[in-house]
Amino acid sequence: MSAKIIDGKAISEQVLAETQTGVAEFRKTHGTTPGLAFVRVGEDPASVVYVGAKARMCERLGIQSQTFILPETSSESQVLELVQTLNKQATVHGILVQAPLPGGLSQDRVFETIDPRKDVDGFHPLNVGKLAVGDRTGFVACTPAGIHQLLIRSGIEIAGRHVVVLGRSRIVGKPMCLILMEKGKLADATVTVCHSRSLNLVAMTHQADIVIAAMGVNNFVKANMVRDGAVVVDVGITRVPDPSAKNGYRLQGDVDYAEVSKKAAWITPVPGGVGPMTIAMLMANTLKAAQLQAASAASGH
Amino acid sequence: MSAKIIDGKAISEQVLAETQTGVAEFRKTHGTTPGLAFVRVGEDPASVVYVGAKARMCERLGIQSQTFILPETSSESQVLELVQTLNKQATVHGILVQAPLPGGLSQDRVFETIDPRKDVDGFHPLNVGKLAVGDRTGFVACTPAGIHQLLIRSGIEIAGRHVVVLGRSRIVGKPMCLILMEKGKLADATVTVCHSRSLNLVAMTHQADIVIAAMGVNNFVKANMVRDGAVVVDVGITRVPDPSAKNGYRLQGDVDYAEVSKKAAWITPVPGGVGPMTIAMLMANTLKAAQLQAASAASGH
Repeated sequence: MSAKIIDGKAISEQVLAETQTGVAEFRKTHGTTPGLAFVRVGEDPASVVYVGAKARMCERLGIQSQTFILPETSSESQVLELVQTLNKQATVHGILVQAPLPGGLSQDRVFETIDPRKDVDGFHPLNVGKLAVGDRTGFVACTPAGIHQLLIRSGIEIAGRHVVVLGRSRIVGKPMCLILMEKGKLADATVTVCHSRSLNLVAMTHQADIVIAAMGVNNFVKANMVRDGAVVVDVGITRVPDPSAKNGYRLQGDVDYAEVSKKAAWITPVPGGVGPMTIAMLMANTLKAAQLQAASAASGH
Repeated sequence: MSAKIIDGKAISEQVLAETQTGVAEFRKTHGTTPGLAFVRVGEDPASVVYVGAKARMCERLGIQSQTFILPETSSESQVLELVQTLNKQATVHGILVQAPLPGGLSQDRVFETIDPRKDVDGFHPLNVGKLAVGDRTGFVACTPAGIHQLLIRSGIEIAGRHVVVLGRSRIVGKPMCLILMEKGKLADATVTVCHSRSLNLVAMTHQADIVIAAMGVNNFVKANMVRDGAVVVDVGITRVPDPSAKNGYRLQGDVDYAEVSKKAAWITPVPGGVGPMTIAMLMANTLKAAQLQAASAASGH
């Protein structure tokens, strides 16, 4: 048996197309364009690539983006000051400060300074809390929100099933389990969170109907850890040196794809699985931010 | 074999004694007294009893409490207006609006109007989010925080062990699982959340090292659902008619105590288990609120 592929590329295109339609409608209704501001501090090569890709996607969908580049040597107060300025600009509906920040800058403090209504990354504690209490006016972190869409749009049943999430990060693991334990027929899962300190991790993953691997450990999930017919979602993405590749490396996930894909019913590839969903959900969150801010301006709040 | 009792009465007295000491130190240092405001809307008999018990506990520990009673027929804006007034009063460090509120009033809106720095119940989304992201400046809901203390102070190992939480409420289940999956040697658990939609719930509870029953279903957890030597925490509290009791009822938990206590290694009784911890943690949260507000006033923020 060979697993069916959960096609992140194709599903992200659905989300992007819907968002593009929403953006066009927003412009027609409000006469303005959803706006997203990127803040990049320093010249971290991966950050340069990520911010560039996100800005190009904005352009493709008709979202107005601006990129602010601060020098590597910026003080925290300089970064916070820029964020506060953007918080006040009515044409900026979303703010994304690209992580990681240079050492010495507190990522938490920067994230918490972003106006929660413009926090399209969904990292502000208020947005994490809104997710936890089921308040739909918040923003959900893009990667777990994207995984949820992958499952739903692949027609994979979640309700009542046992999901094992490997990893308890603020960005993926924790919001993922909050999303899937939520009430409603697109969630309602029994959720287990495992991590580096878990005893019996293999016994746990082996029972899972759905395994979501977000440990950040290359090739961690082996065939013996997964039951026949499981759904396996791979959030990991590590650069592994590969002399045969033209850029000298290839991308590898947290799942041993070659082995596990023989046993699973569904699996996400790396690349082309979770990755494309993250940027698609960022675009969807930006549209949502613009819509909520327009509605709130209209009602005078 | 018969389970050892997790003595909530005795452990709550430890927490209360520590809080009393802290309150005395606070008064010496700051020349003011930690203050807690109760808001009760209407005359729900249970609410009258709960608010009364909490106010008496404040008095015992040297916390200054005030109780505001609004008529059953109050509008939401009247309740919100009172909360906003209390938000502004410097002598009020904590605000507790007793649930349930009369029909027609949005509990969520009331909870979200309380200044998060005064939200000693830990129900505001910002505080739930701070718990989720590991920010210790927030307030943790009293019942799950109390259960955490019961485990720690009974010397029960949590790290690496499998905890099954039954119930996913905003007040107990969700914060409970966030507390126990947190990093650190007093947490670090593998956590599974089950609920009314879970398939294989019995298979799940049967694997648990620690079962936390918070479904609100009387006598739900039977001996066959628990493995030998498990730790069983009972959050449920239901009034069951009992003609032999002088008030005509007795309290029963979510766990079939008679059966399960023969099999478990540790068990909380009802009453005298989780119950007394909730009020003790409320007192501890009020002291914490006063301390944080004093520190923040001193630093000029």
